[in-house]
Amino acid sequence: MKLPGQEEFDISSTCENVATGEPESGPGSGLSPDGPSDTDSRELGVPKDPVLFIQLNELMGWPQALEWRETGRWVLFEEKLEVGAGRWSAPHVPTLALPSLQKLRSLLAEGLVLLDCPARSLLELVEQVTRVELLSPELRGQLQALLLQRPQHLIWTTRTRPCCWSAHPREASHDEEAPMKEQHQNPLRQKLPPGAEAAAVLAGELGSLTQPLGVFVRLRDPVVLGPLTEVPLPSRFFCLLLGPPTLGRGYHEMGRAVAVLLSDRQFQWSVRRASNLHDLLAALDAFLEEVTVLPPGRWDPTARIPPPKCLPSHHKRLASQLREFKGSSVRRRAPAEDRHSHRPHPPSPELRRTGRLFGGFVQDVRRKASWYPSDFLDALHPQCFSAVLYIYLATVTNAITFGGLLGEATNGAQGVLESFLGTAVAGAAFCLMAGQPLTILSSTGPVLVFERLLFSFSRDYSLDYLPFRLWVGIWVAIFCLALVATEASVLVRYFTRFTEEGFCALISLIFIYDAVGKMLSLTRAYPIQRPGSPTYGCFCQFPDPQGNESQWIRTKPKDRDDILSVDLGLVNASLLPPPECAQRGGRPRGPGCHTVPDIAFFSVLLFLTSFLFAMALKHVKSSRFFPSVMRKMLSDFSSVLAILLGCGLDAFLGLATPKLMVPREFKPTLPGRGWLVSPFGANPWWLSVAAALPALLLSILIFMDQQITAVILNRAKYRLQKGAGFHLDLFCVAVLMLLTSALGLPWYVSATVISLAHMDSLRRESRACAPGEPPSFLGIREQRLTGLVVFILTGISIFLAPVLKFTKRVQLLLMPAKYQPDLLLLRHVPLNRIHLFTGIQLACLGLLWIIKSTPAAIIFPLMLLGLVGVRKAMEWVFSPQELLWLDELMPEKERNISEKGLEPEYSFSGSDSEDSELMYQPKSPEINISVN
Amino acid sequence: MKLPGQEEFDISSTCENVATGEPESGPGSGLSPDGPSDTDSRELGVPKDPVLFIQLNELMGWPQALEWRETGRWVLFEEKLEVGAGRWSAPHVPTLALPSLQKLRSLLAEGLVLLDCPARSLLELVEQVTRVELLSPELRGQLQALLLQRPQHLIWTTRTRPCCWSAHPREASHDEEAPMKEQHQNPLRQKLPPGAEAAAVLAGELGSLTQPLGVFVRLRDPVVLGPLTEVPLPSRFFCLLLGPPTLGRGYHEMGRAVAVLLSDRQFQWSVRRASNLHDLLAALDAFLEEVTVLPPGRWDPTARIPPPKCLPSHHKRLASQLREFKGSSVRRRAPAEDRHSHRPHPPSPELRRTGRLFGGFVQDVRRKASWYPSDFLDALHPQCFSAVLYIYLATVTNAITFGGLLGEATNGAQGVLESFLGTAVAGAAFCLMAGQPLTILSSTGPVLVFERLLFSFSRDYSLDYLPFRLWVGIWVAIFCLALVATEASVLVRYFTRFTEEGFCALISLIFIYDAVGKMLSLTRAYPIQRPGSPTYGCFCQFPDPQGNESQWIRTKPKDRDDILSVDLGLVNASLLPPPECAQRGGRPRGPGCHTVPDIAFFSVLLFLTSFLFAMALKHVKSSRFFPSVMRKMLSDFSSVLAILLGCGLDAFLGLATPKLMVPREFKPTLPGRGWLVSPFGANPWWLSVAAALPALLLSILIFMDQQITAVILNRAKYRLQKGAGFHLDLFCVAVLMLLTSALGLPWYVSATVISLAHMDSLRRESRACAPGEPPSFLGIREQRLTGLVVFILTGISIFLAPVLKFTKRVQLLLMPAKYQPDLLLLRHVPLNRIHLFTGIQLACLGLLWIIKSTPAAIIFPLMLLGLVGVRKAMEWVFSPQELLWLDELMPEKERNISEKGLEPEYSFSGSDSEDSELMYQPKSPEINISVN
Repeated sequence: MKLPGQEEFDISSTCENVATGEPESGPGSGLSPDGPSDTDSRELGVPKDPVLFIQLNELMGWPQALEWRETGRWVLFEEKLEVGAGRWSAPHVPTLALPSLQKLRSLLAEGLVLLDCPARSLLELVEQVTRVELLSPELRGQLQALLLQRPQHLIWTTRTRPCCWSAHPREASHDEEAPMKEQHQNPLRQKLPPGAEAAAVLAGELGSLTQPLGVFVRLRDPVVLGPLTEVPLPSRFFCLLLGPPTLGRGYHEMGRAVAVLLSDRQFQWSVRRASNLHDLLAALDAFLEEVTVLPPGRWDPTARIPPPKCLPSHHKRLASQLREFKGSSVRRRAPAEDRHSHRPHPPSPELRRTGRLFGGFVQDVRRKASWYPSDFLDALHPQCFSAVLYIYLATVTNAITFGGLLGEATNGAQGVLESFLGTAVAGAAFCLMAGQPLTILSSTGPVLVFERLLFSFSRDYSLDYLPFRLWVGIWVAIFCLALVATEASVLVRYFTRFTEEGFCALISLIFIYDAVGKMLSLTRAYPIQRPGSPTYGCFCQFPDPQGNESQWIRTKPKDRDDILSVDLGLVNASLLPPPECAQRGGRPRGPGCHTVPDIAFFSVLLFLTSFLFAMALKHVKSSRFFPSVMRKMLSDFSSVLAILLGCGLDAFLGLATPKLMVPREFKPTLPGRGWLVSPFGANPWWLSVAAALPALLLSILIFMDQQITAVILNRAKYRLQKGAGFHLDLFCVAVLMLLTSALGLPWYVSATVISLAHMDSLRRESRACAPGEPPSFLGIREQRLTGLVVFILTGISIFLAPVLKFTKRVQLLLMPAKYQPDLLLLRHVPLNRIHLFTGIQLACLGLLWIIKSTPAAIIFPLMLLGLVGVRKAMEWVFSPQELLWLDELMPEKERNISEKGLEPEYSFSGSDSEDSELMYQPKSPEINISVN
Repeated sequence: MKLPGQEEFDISSTCENVATGEPESGPGSGLSPDGPSDTDSRELGVPKDPVLFIQLNELMGWPQALEWRETGRWVLFEEKLEVGAGRWSAPHVPTLALPSLQKLRSLLAEGLVLLDCPARSLLELVEQVTRVELLSPELRGQLQALLLQRPQHLIWTTRTRPCCWSAHPREASHDEEAPMKEQHQNPLRQKLPPGAEAAAVLAGELGSLTQPLGVFVRLRDPVVLGPLTEVPLPSRFFCLLLGPPTLGRGYHEMGRAVAVLLSDRQFQWSVRRASNLHDLLAALDAFLEEVTVLPPGRWDPTARIPPPKCLPSHHKRLASQLREFKGSSVRRRAPAEDRHSHRPHPPSPELRRTGRLFGGFVQDVRRKASWYPSDFLDALHPQCFSAVLYIYLATVTNAITFGGLLGEATNGAQGVLESFLGTAVAGAAFCLMAGQPLTILSSTGPVLVFERLLFSFSRDYSLDYLPFRLWVGIWVAIFCLALVATEASVLVRYFTRFTEEGFCALISLIFIYDAVGKMLSLTRAYPIQRPGSPTYGCFCQFPDPQGNESQWIRTKPKDRDDILSVDLGLVNASLLPPPECAQRGGRPRGPGCHTVPDIAFFSVLLFLTSFLFAMALKHVKSSRFFPSVMRKMLSDFSSVLAILLGCGLDAFLGLATPKLMVPREFKPTLPGRGWLVSPFGANPWWLSVAAALPALLLSILIFMDQQITAVILNRAKYRLQKGAGFHLDLFCVAVLMLLTSALGLPWYVSATVISLAHMDSLRRESRACAPGEPPSFLGIREQRLTGLVVFILTGISIFLAPVLKFTKRVQLLLMPAKYQPDLLLLRHVPLNRIHLFTGIQLACLGLLWIIKSTPAAIIFPLMLLGLVGVRKAMEWVFSPQELLWLDELMPEKERNISEKGLEPEYSFSGSDSEDSELMYQPKSPEINISVN
C-alpha cells in the first residue's frame, strides 16, 4: 500500500499527556479503568478523585416569569448553550474576565460556605442553603420555592419545541425529585465514567434581594438532586450566586467562574479536602496564581478557543511552576530540557550486549516464550477483526504492487503469484516465531532496488538468475546468522534520524523517478498522433484464392522512399482493424498498424486522477465534512479507493491499456521451472562462492532495513509491554531468506509503514472522556493472531488471483510524499545551521543518487552505511545541542552530555516515554487564527 | 477573467477595526496621517498619542559577566528573541502570568516613580534613577556603571557572530551616547510612524542588591538614550526592575509585564496623563479589570497565539464593558445587536426618491459634476499604474473569453473582434460619463445566456438576427430610460442576499453545465479509439494518369455491407495521411479519415491541468511559502498563468486541438456585413414592434445585473467619498445599449468581480503599522483615469489580435466556485431553520433551472424577479431575527423592527459602516489549533 520511508504514522497521536505513568507490568494486566484523569492522578500519588460534571443554571425572565435555565456545562472544557440556535456549542477552552473571579472571591468570603453538608435530598439542601440571616422569612419561602422549581434543560426543550424556551410549562416540581426519563437517556452520560459526580451552579439576579447571596456547599455524601442537573449524577457540590439586578451579567460571569474553577483538577482536589472557608479561598488564590492572562485590545474576548489536542499534563504544570521560581541557572538550560524530555532511544534491555555468542538471541527467545500464550489470548477483542481487514487489504495491495514491480524488474522470474505465496508463507512464519509479532513482513523498496540491480548484473553476464540468487540468499542467511551470533543488533543505537531520513529519501526518490520514467516511456510505446504522423498507414492484406499473398503493383515510384509514398495497387486487401484482420485470416500491413491511439494520454489521465483522488481522500481526514469515522475510513482506504476508481474508469472506457499479467494456475510465473530452484543451473560452480560479495551488500541492506523498522516500532511512545526481539527478528528474517531463495520467492523484511498501520489499528484508547478532550492512548494490543490471520488470508487470496486483473498504471500513485512540519526546531537552532545540516543531507542524497546511476550502483548498500559515518563526522561541525535539535544524539554522546550536567535537574525522564518525533512537530498546541 | 457571481472579493478584508469613524467629508480630503492608532484615537475624541516602541533589556551573565541583552520588543504584539536561533520570533499576542502582574504592582507601589523627569541624557537619567535610599554609595556607583553599559542588540550581534552572544566585546560606552549606525539602519524604523517614541524596560537579577529595586520614569521631554534601545527613537518611559537573584525568572516576567502594560493603548493613555503613583496604580488596576483569563491545565502557556486578523477596536472594548455591566434586558438582545452592527444597506442619499421625473438622474449628475476634476487629479499615484496593468489583463482575458463564447452562441454573428471593440468603446465611454467610474463594464454571464436564447429563437424562426437584435436593443434602451425617469433604481433596496445568491448561483450553474457539456461533446467530435473502432480505415486515392479516379475492383463481397468489409483492389492509392494526401492532389477515402486521435483525452488533460493549476495558484495566497508579495501576484494572476500553461503545453505537443478563431483584419466577424446594422434586413416590419417583448425581459435582466453590482460596489464598507450614481449609471448603460446594438457589438453591463478587483487594486492602506498588525483600510482611490486607460489599451489590443490565438479549452477553467464559511450564523439560528432557508433557495434554483431547460427559457429574467417575491413571502415563514441572520432585512422592515425597540440601546450604528458580509463569516478572530 505504501512504500517504506513514506510518511510515518503517528500512532500515539493523541499526544503524551499520560506519558509519565509507569508502564503496567506483568502479563495479563488488562484494561485499566478508563477515565480522563486516570493516569494523571496516579502520577500525583493521590487516590483518584471522581470526574466532576458541572452545570450552570441561570435565573432568567426576571421580573415577570422567573425560571432556571441551563446555560453552560463543563467537564474539562466549556459547552455553552446557544440560546437562539437551541443547541450546545462545540467544547472550547473557557475564558474568564478577571473581575468576575475577584467578585466571586469576595462574595464567597462573605457568603455561606457549608463543607460536608449532610443533606440527603434537594429539599433538605434547599432548607440548609436558605438558612441565612439576611433573608426575611417571607423572602426565604420565595427563594425555597424558586430553588425547587424544575430547571429548563436543553434535552427537554428540544423534545417539546426546538428553538424556543418560553412556551414550556413551568410547573413547580416540589415532590418530583426522582430523575426523569430524559435525564437517564442523556447521551452525555455515556461520556462520563462510572463514579462521576455532579456540581450544580445556580446564578442569577433576583429583584427581591437587597444584598448579594453567595452559598457554596460540599455535600458529605453525594446525592442525586432530582432534575437539578441534566445528567442524573449524584451531586457533590452546589453553589448559589444570587443578588439584586444591579450587577446584571456579573452573576452569569461569576457562575461561569465557579464552574471553571470546579472544572480545574487542582482546585477540585483542594476543595474536596478543604476543611474551612480559608482553604477554599486559598485554593482559589492558587488557581489565580496559575492562570494565563491575555492583555485587552489584542484579543477578541468573545472568540472561542477550541480544545488543544495535547493538554498540558499535571507534571508539566508542576514543571513550569518550578521553572518559574527556580534560579537563572535552570533558565539557561531550558532549551536542552525541552529537547531532553523527548528522549531518542531510551536504554532498552533488549539492546544490552551480553558478550556471549547468541546471547541476545537466547535472551529474546526466553523473554518472548513467557508471553507466548498471552500472544493469542490477548487477540480476543472485536478490534482485532477490523485490524485484520485493514491490514489484509494493505498487504494484498502491497503484494500486487511489488509483484508487478518485481515481475518487471526480473523479467518475469518473479511475479504476482510468487509475491502472494511468499508474502503468505514468510509473513505467517514470522508472525508465529518472531520477537515482535506486530511487525508485518513485506517486499520493501530497498530490496526491490537491489534485486533489480542483481538481475541486470546477471543478465549482462548471462548468468542463470534464480540459481545465482539462491546462492546470494544462502550467503545472506549465513551473514545474518553471524550478525545474530555477534549481537550486532545493538549497533542500531547509531541509526539516528539522519540515517533514517537519508535511507528513506533515496528509496522514495528512486520510486518517484521510476514512476515518472515509466509514465513517459508509454509515449514511446503508444506514440501520440501529431498531425502528419502515420496513423492512417495500415490495411489488411488477405491471401488470394490460391493462397498466395496479394500482389503489390508499384505503379508510380515517388520521391520519398518510405512506404507512405508507395502507391497501392492491391487486390485482396481491406481496411479492417488489425485484430479483426488477423481473425479473418489476413495480415495487417503498413506503418500505422502497431500504433494504438489515445492510450498514452488516457494513461496519463488515469495516473493523474488516481493520484489526485488518493491525495484528496487522504486529506478528507482533516476536513470538516462527514463524521469522523467515515473520514478516517475514506482516508485509510484512500489508495484502495483510488485504485478502484482508476480500474473503474479504465473498464468503463474499455481501452486497450497495458494490464498486469496474473497467472491463472498455481505454478511459477517463469515458464518451465519447478518450485525448487536448482542450486547451480547453467552457472559455473565458483559462482556460488562469488555470490558472497553481493550477499554482503544485501546483508547490510537487509540489516538496516529490518532494524530501522524494528527501532521505530519498538519506540517507547508506543508503550509496548512485551518487549522487543531485535536478535530473534533478524534470525527469523535470515531463515526466511533461505526458504524464499530456495523457492524462488521474493525476499522479505519488516515494512515500516504497514507495520505502523498494524499497530495503529490495534491501539487501545480510553473510552470515556470529557467533551472536547481527546481520548488518551493506553497501549497496543500486542498479539500474534491478527498478523497470522492476515497472512493466511493472503495465502488464500492466491486462488482469487484471476480476479486481481488490476490496471498496472495505478502503481504510480504510490509516489511517496513527505510532510515534515518542523517549527519547534526553528526556535532553537539558527537557520543557517539548519540549512547546513539539510545541505549535508542533500549532498549525501545526491552522492547516493549519482552512485546509484553509475555501474557501481550495486554497492549502494555500502554507501548507506556511510551515512552513519557522515553523521558521526558531523559531530565535528555541529554542537551537541544543535544535533540534539536537528537530529538525535547518539546514545553514548548523550550519556556524556548528561554526565557533564546538561541533564535537567528536575527532569522526570526516568520514566519519560515521550517520542522523539515531537520536536519536529510544531510546539503543541499551536494556534492559527483563521478569520474568514 | 472571472464570471459575475463567482466568489466576491473582500476588499476591506483587513477588517473593520476602524469602521465607526465618521467618513471624511468634502472633496479633496486626501490621505490622513497613516498610523496604527489613527482612527481609533479620533474615535475617542482625544489628541493622538505617539506610537510607543517598547524594548526589554535583560541583565544576563550573573555573577561572572554582567551584560544587558535585548530579549523582547513590543509595539502592539510581542516579539521574543530566540536566543539559540539568534532571530526574532514572529509577532504574537503576549500572554502573562497573573502573579507577575501582581508582583510588579507591589514593586512599583514601593519603588521610585518619577513622572515628568527632566533628564536630558542617559547619564542624567541614570543619576536620577539611582538616587534611591536603599542603595549604598558603593552600590550606586556599581549600578550606574551597569546602567551605562551598552546593551547587546540583535542587530549588532548578527553582524559579528550569527548565533552566539558571548564573544562580543562588552566595553562600557559612557561617553558614546550618540546612536550608532546600526541603530539608524534598523529596518524596524521603517515600520514606525514619524513621531514614535520609545520605552526602555530593564530587568534582571543583581547579586549585590539586598532588596528589590523598582523604578518607573516618565521623561518630561523624550530624549534619545544613546544605544539603550535598538531603534534610535526618543525615549518617553524608562523602567528598571532589579533585585536579588532569589526570584529568578520573576524579573524577566515582571519586565514583560511592564512592556505589555505599556503596549496597551488604554494604559499608555492613562500613564501619559498620570500625575502621581496613585494614577499609575489605578491604570494598572484598570488594565487588570480588562484582561482575559485562561484557566490553567487546559492551555499550554508556552504556546504562542498569532495576532488576530481583526483587532477588537476600542469601541468594541467599550461596548463589551458596557454589556458586562448593563442589566439583563441588554443581554437578551445580544444576538440582534451583533447582527445589527453590520447593517445591510445603510440609507444612502443616492437612493432617496425625489418624486420628480429624472429627479434622481439630475441629482446624480449634479453630485458627480462637482467631483469631475478630482476624478482625474486623484489618479496621480503610482498605485494606479499597477491597477491599470492588473485590470487590463483581466479585461483582455474577459474579452477573449466572452468573445469566444459569444461567437459560439451566435454562430459567428459576434466574435472576438466585436468583443474587443465593444469592450473598449463601451468601457471608455462609461468611465468618462458614469456615476461610479470604478465600475468596469464587461459582457456578463446573464446577458450571454439571454443572447444565446435570443439567437436560437431567431434561428428557429428564420429571422435575420442582427436587425432583430438591434430592435431589442432600441427597446431596452427605451425601457431603461423609462426606469431612469421613474427613479426605479431606488428599488434596489429589495435586492437582499437571497436574491443575489439565487441570481449568481443560476448563472454559475449554467456556466459549469455548459463547460462540462462542451468538454464531453469533444468526445463526439474526436471519438476515442476503442479496440475495433475504425481508426485504420483511411487511404489516399489518386486520380489515374487519365484524370479518372482509380478503379474499385470488388473481388469478394463479404457478409457485412459496410466499407470495412469491402475488399480493396486499388491502383493509384497510398496510405498518406489526409492533409498530405490532399496536398498531393489525392482524395482521402474511408471511414477513418475524419478521426483525429488523442485530441479528446488531450483536451481533457489540458482542461484538468489548467483548472487545477489555477486552483493551486489561487491557494498559494494562504500558503506559507514565498514572500507575501509574490504570493499575491501568483494568486491574482492565477487564471492568466494557468491559461499560459495550457497554451504552452498545447504548443509544445503541437496537436490539432480546436483553436479560437481570431480575425486578422479589422472587419466584422460575420462575413459580408458592414459595421452599421441595417434596421430591418430580411425581417418583416412588425418584428421591430414585437421585439419589445424580449426587450422587456432583457431590461429586467440588465436592470438587476447592473444594480446588484452597483449595490455591492457602493457598500459603505468601501468608504467611497464621492457617492454613487445609480440613475446615471443606468442611463449610461441604456445609451451604450443603443450604440452597441446599432454596431452589432456585444451588450455590456457592470461586472461585479472585475469591478471589485479594480477597487481592490486601488485600495489605500496605512503604511506604517506595528509588527503583527494588519494594515488598516483607509479608502479607495476614486477616479476615472485607470478605467479609461484600461479600455483605451483594450482598444489598442485589437491590433494585437493575431497574437491572441489562445486555446479555446481554457475557457473551461473559468468554472465558478463558491466558498462560504458561515459559522457565526450557526450560533444564532437553529440548524433546521437554516436548512429550510437553504432548501427554499435550492428549490428556487431548481425551478429556475427547469424553466431554463424548457422552451419557456427566454422568460427566465421574470423568474429572477420572482426571487424577490419569494423572499418577501418568506417573511411569513421566518421571524425577522432569523432573516436578519440568514439573509438581510428589507429596509422598511428593518426600520419597523428598530422602532419596536429591537435596535440596541447603545448601538453606534449611526455611522456604522460595517459590511453585511461579516455575519456570513466566522466570528473573527476564530482560533484553530493545529497541532499535527
